[in-house]
Amino acid sequence: MAARVVIPSPALRSSAQIPLRPGADEDRGGETRTPRIPLLNGRPSVPGGFPAKAFVGEVVPFSVVAFREGHDIIGVHVRVTDPQGGETLHRLTPRQNGTDAWGAEIALDVQGRWTYRFEAFSDDFATWAHAAELKVAAGVDVPVMAALGAELLRRAAGEKDRPASERKRLLADAASLDGGSGETALALSTDPELARIFADRPVTTLRSHTTAQTLVVDRTAAGAAAWYEFFPRSEGARRLKNGTVKSGTFRTAAKRLPGVAAMGFDVIYLVPIHPIGTTNRKGRNNTLVAEPGDPGSPYAIGSAEGGHDAIHPELGTAQDFRAFVRAAQREGLEVALDLALQASPDHPWVTEHPEWFTTLPDGTIAFAENPPKKYQDIYPLNFDNDPEGIYAEMLRIVRHWVAQGVKIFRVDNPHTKPLQFWEWLIATVNREDPDVIFLAEAFTRPAVMRALAAVGFQQSYSYFTWRNTKEELEEFLTSVSQETSDYMRPNLFVNTHDILTEYLQFGGRAAYRIRACIAATATPLYGVYAGYELVENVARPGSEENIDNEKYEFKFRDWEGAEERGESLAPLLRRLNEIRRAHPALRQLRNFSAHWSDDDQILVYSKHLAAEFTGTGEADTLIVVANVDPHSVRETTVHLDTTIWGVPAGESFEVEDLLTGSVWTWSDHNYVRLDAFAEPVHILKVRQRA
Amino acid sequence: MAARVVIPSPALRSSAQIPLRPGADEDRGGETRTPRIPLLNGRPSVPGGFPAKAFVGEVVPFSVVAFREGHDIIGVHVRVTDPQGGETLHRLTPRQNGTDAWGAEIALDVQGRWTYRFEAFSDDFATWAHAAELKVAAGVDVPVMAALGAELLRRAAGEKDRPASERKRLLADAASLDGGSGETALALSTDPELARIFADRPVTTLRSHTTAQTLVVDRTAAGAAAWYEFFPRSEGARRLKNGTVKSGTFRTAAKRLPGVAAMGFDVIYLVPIHPIGTTNRKGRNNTLVAEPGDPGSPYAIGSAEGGHDAIHPELGTAQDFRAFVRAAQREGLEVALDLALQASPDHPWVTEHPEWFTTLPDGTIAFAENPPKKYQDIYPLNFDNDPEGIYAEMLRIVRHWVAQGVKIFRVDNPHTKPLQFWEWLIATVNREDPDVIFLAEAFTRPAVMRALAAVGFQQSYSYFTWRNTKEELEEFLTSVSQETSDYMRPNLFVNTHDILTEYLQFGGRAAYRIRACIAATATPLYGVYAGYELVENVARPGSEENIDNEKYEFKFRDWEGAEERGESLAPLLRRLNEIRRAHPALRQLRNFSAHWSDDDQILVYSKHLAAEFTGTGEADTLIVVANVDPHSVRETTVHLDTTIWGVPAGESFEVEDLLTGSVWTWSDHNYVRLDAFAEPVHILKVRQRA
Repeated sequence: MAARVVIPSPALRSSAQIPLRPGADEDRGGETRTPRIPLLNGRPSVPGGFPAKAFVGEVVPFSVVAFREGHDIIGVHVRVTDPQGGETLHRLTPRQNGTDAWGAEIALDVQGRWTYRFEAFSDDFATWAHAAELKVAAGVDVPVMAALGAELLRRAAGEKDRPASERKRLLADAASLDGGSGETALALSTDPELARIFADRPVTTLRSHTTAQTLVVDRTAAGAAAWYEFFPRSEGARRLKNGTVKSGTFRTAAKRLPGVAAMGFDVIYLVPIHPIGTTNRKGRNNTLVAEPGDPGSPYAIGSAEGGHDAIHPELGTAQDFRAFVRAAQREGLEVALDLALQASPDHPWVTEHPEWFTTLPDGTIAFAENPPKKYQDIYPLNFDNDPEGIYAEMLRIVRHWVAQGVKIFRVDNPHTKPLQFWEWLIATVNREDPDVIFLAEAFTRPAVMRALAAVGFQQSYSYFTWRNTKEELEEFLTSVSQETSDYMRPNLFVNTHDILTEYLQFGGRAAYRIRACIAATATPLYGVYAGYELVENVARPGSEENIDNEKYEFKFRDWEGAEERGESLAPLLRRLNEIRRAHPALRQLRNFSAHWSDDDQILVYSKHLAAEFTGTGEADTLIVVANVDPHSVRETTVHLDTTIWGVPAGESFEVEDLLTGSVWTWSDHNYVRLDAFAEPVHILKVRQRA
Repeated sequence: MAARVVIPSPALRSSAQIPLRPGADEDRGGETRTPRIPLLNGRPSVPGGFPAKAFVGEVVPFSVVAFREGHDIIGVHVRVTDPQGGETLHRLTPRQNGTDAWGAEIALDVQGRWTYRFEAFSDDFATWAHAAELKVAAGVDVPVMAALGAELLRRAAGEKDRPASERKRLLADAASLDGGSGETALALSTDPELARIFADRPVTTLRSHTTAQTLVVDRTAAGAAAWYEFFPRSEGARRLKNGTVKSGTFRTAAKRLPGVAAMGFDVIYLVPIHPIGTTNRKGRNNTLVAEPGDPGSPYAIGSAEGGHDAIHPELGTAQDFRAFVRAAQREGLEVALDLALQASPDHPWVTEHPEWFTTLPDGTIAFAENPPKKYQDIYPLNFDNDPEGIYAEMLRIVRHWVAQGVKIFRVDNPHTKPLQFWEWLIATVNREDPDVIFLAEAFTRPAVMRALAAVGFQQSYSYFTWRNTKEELEEFLTSVSQETSDYMRPNLFVNTHDILTEYLQFGGRAAYRIRACIAATATPLYGVYAGYELVENVARPGSEENIDNEKYEFKFRDWEGAEERGESLAPLLRRLNEIRRAHPALRQLRNFSAHWSDDDQILVYSKHLAAEFTGTGEADTLIVVANVDPHSVRETTVHLDTTIWGVPAGESFEVEDLLTGSVWTWSDHNYVRLDAFAEPVHILKVRQRA
């Protein structure tokens, strides 16, 4: 943690005044809910009272509304308790005038369960100094102000935990006020050394506090990472002479790892690797009947060869999988697995635990359906027939893969299972291993997405793919970085094997470049699905999905050839991931600020991290300017609130485009020209003035 | 660690026959916070967990976000428990698509402390009927759907609390499905009688509920009333031959009561009636030195003649006061007193309880101040020296006036006393007498205003006086009627003895008319300070206060003469109060909806109350269209969302202007012409079509 004011807790408990109510513990308001100094709307906070979230490396804004009656000055602290029970006190500063809001930014750099509570107090020295400064200058109450000052300084000097040197100084100052000198009072009311002493260790009365709240600090990968999704069976798949395809294996797929690592990704996410059912197997393009040789959807999990704890024999053995995980680790990549809790009709559960499904009056098991449509390659689980059995089995499966070295799970359709189940599963797994991370793939209604995040998911797919206009992106990015950031971490996937938006279908290479630049810089989690580099933008007609969806067939891709021909976006992704690694401001969620531009297609935002948190001693500030119309060249003026990064309005500063190396002098109003076909996005580093 | 599976609750596992009623603890989620069916963001709700507020006659919107995984249909109830413990269940209906929000409007027409909790359940008949309708029509699973239907109907028939006639009908229907007929299944899935049976008494599983919340229902005057403020000493004051003034008394002031009652007001509010200090008494226009004969500010409370429990001898005796209260009651007026907890230097407290003030090192008592300014006619109380003593004294004072027949207190500057104190005082008083109402005069920062309301004040002065443009009014009225309406009831004073806004100073009679019309119709509480009728709009130069503020002198007003000369706004106020009495929609806070107009000075809103709540069997709907520019004639088009009152877009309806009697045919787009000098506001009653 960066240097901050740390005050031992006894300072707050020592009291020069009678508690409000005899027997009250400090001041919790006695019989009232309201403490002596009200403390309201504390943040972080999560609807439903679930723990708030942060991650190692994240700077968390703490805020609370606090006020008292009259003109006396208050101070506000947040007392933070780390997972080992160590306490630190952090002073909050007043925010926007008239809001009574107080705030502080704190980095909680140890993984685990923290608690925090807000504390407010009457800041007696500040109150005296303010009154003395004004009244002595006005010639009002001069001897009284001197006497009050002497009394206050003596009280401070009497506090047990004050260093001897401070006590001596305070007693001397008190004595100098005994003559009633206005001059002395005025001098002391503005004395910087005295201000420092009382900033560190204020003289307080009317101490009040909130109840303690929990904040879970996850490991960094929970909050900041670049994901790459792929189908291991496609990597190394070969078409045989008989026209059928020989599946890729973990061994052949491992050959793709250096390429993914070279692009700078952190997480390699594999769609399900389990045996695939044959009953009602889907054919290419989701046809109802598979042709011979069609590999089937990896989401139709389970066959005679096993279920969720088994590996598809064509991919290899458990040993091969562990070797793949190790190979990934050697490349600096962490493996994420898909957790799709459903079964093909051939899953061992179906015969061993028919009670985990819904049996119809005719004795058959109910397929997944959206009446009158049915999905006949899938049986959904029924969590209400035998919850104990199902809960235990799901926990067993997660533990199985954790034992194989997997600590990240991308959870398929969590909104089709009880919310309660996820709360229980994630809490149970994280009690055993806090490193395990769950990403919710819930493309569903806002209330459901948010509730999944609130009950425990460390990451969430989001509406990002469908937020393409400037207005949509501004609203979306502001909302996820501020409104819901205490508990929901959006992972901005630019595409998935099931999602190819119209924007990507019709926006050409420019669209792919624009979306990658925004996803990689706006929030600290983003992801791409293999093939994005190759601008695979042909949709199945009438759908927002790639034609020849990889879910139902093998894909053959020429990564190196495309790059050699200059057709690949791999160099852009590599550069974006380099920029992310070099700039801690990009590995924060809550520091997003939208700025104005005069063009309704030019999106502007900044990401700022104060010097005390960067580790370099210098602030890290980036400005992203994106032309989100992939068919145009646009010139406009962007208007920046430079005060966010400490540059007064109107002052100039240098910016360097991290994509092109261009350097410009900017201020709060700047001309930009963004050509979607050549250079649709600026990613500008603000250079600090000497 | 061994698998430790915690299952939500026994009810979850047991068969579906558990009746809804006995469900005390049914499913609260076991060790999870989340119940089986999540229930989130319930409203009414108050920050800090304080009880929500309603009043007798108010229609309260209850809402909650509820959803479950999959396609099964849920139902949502709110279980409301009245102060005597009687329970009722109210079905909520889904609100805007995609929000998972459910709502119901309920009138809680008994004063006292209610509780409510939301309950959700899987609605098994609705799920079956929906699937059967679609699948049978599509020829899918026909025998299965019939069999599932038979099973469900038999289960329903077996429920103990179902009337015998229903059970018979259900068993017959079940039997008719036994043949597996799709036609029968289809018919039953859309059978209106069956739908009604299950709407009243659904067949449920997965029952879940929230914890119970408290809602305090106050008497009607807490939420809907028209206030009239006056200085009793001015009514009947006479200038003597020697130039001094003989104060009015309760007896002379009582002569004004019929006039106030004739205008239709409900509450007559008196500024403080206690003895006024002489030390440092303020003179006219807040000058520091009073001239002989200056009566002093009634807020400088206390003299040798007594303090907060005494009556200014010039006003009369305690007996006179009680007679005044009775006279008001005879006129249908309720008396409100000012509660200004501060003391003049001559207050008996100063000698009897110097510990209730702040004593300075020189032995003097600290004046009220805003450094370096001091207010030398006032000593503020210091609540922290002897809280028990002060709390007890303040309670004694309130009890004293309650014993004199006063049940409404307008509290002066509550934000200068501890919030905690108000929570305690109001709760303590209301436990003894729930009829007592406190209005917070806190013209201060939003967080403080809201906190005062949350901790217990039944009414709040608001920013209304400073919200004068269309944009300001729309934002303000929408916010107070929706965002904070669960706990804060704004009382829209158009002026006070301390507030004469620039809008009123410079807007002429039109401004006075416009503001009165909006205040009287937008929310159910409003008030005027005596003299508003006479358009007293001359300010003390440079201030937003009347010149010759009545606080420091006597006022002589010729009510009858002004009315005879046609100069008085009394007829308008009378008509507005008549309209309020005739239209229950105007006595609601939460039913305000802003509508669009093409002119940025034409404010449009509606107030709608559904037929089931009006007592007449007909809905009550009013549309207010106000030209808020008091210097102009404006023509424009207003655009209404008529669906709020059940009129489909594009359909026409009749409106009657309740101020002029004009009748027009309107639809969703309507021409208006509003002449500030003649007719600045339409108050339109929507006439129901036959």
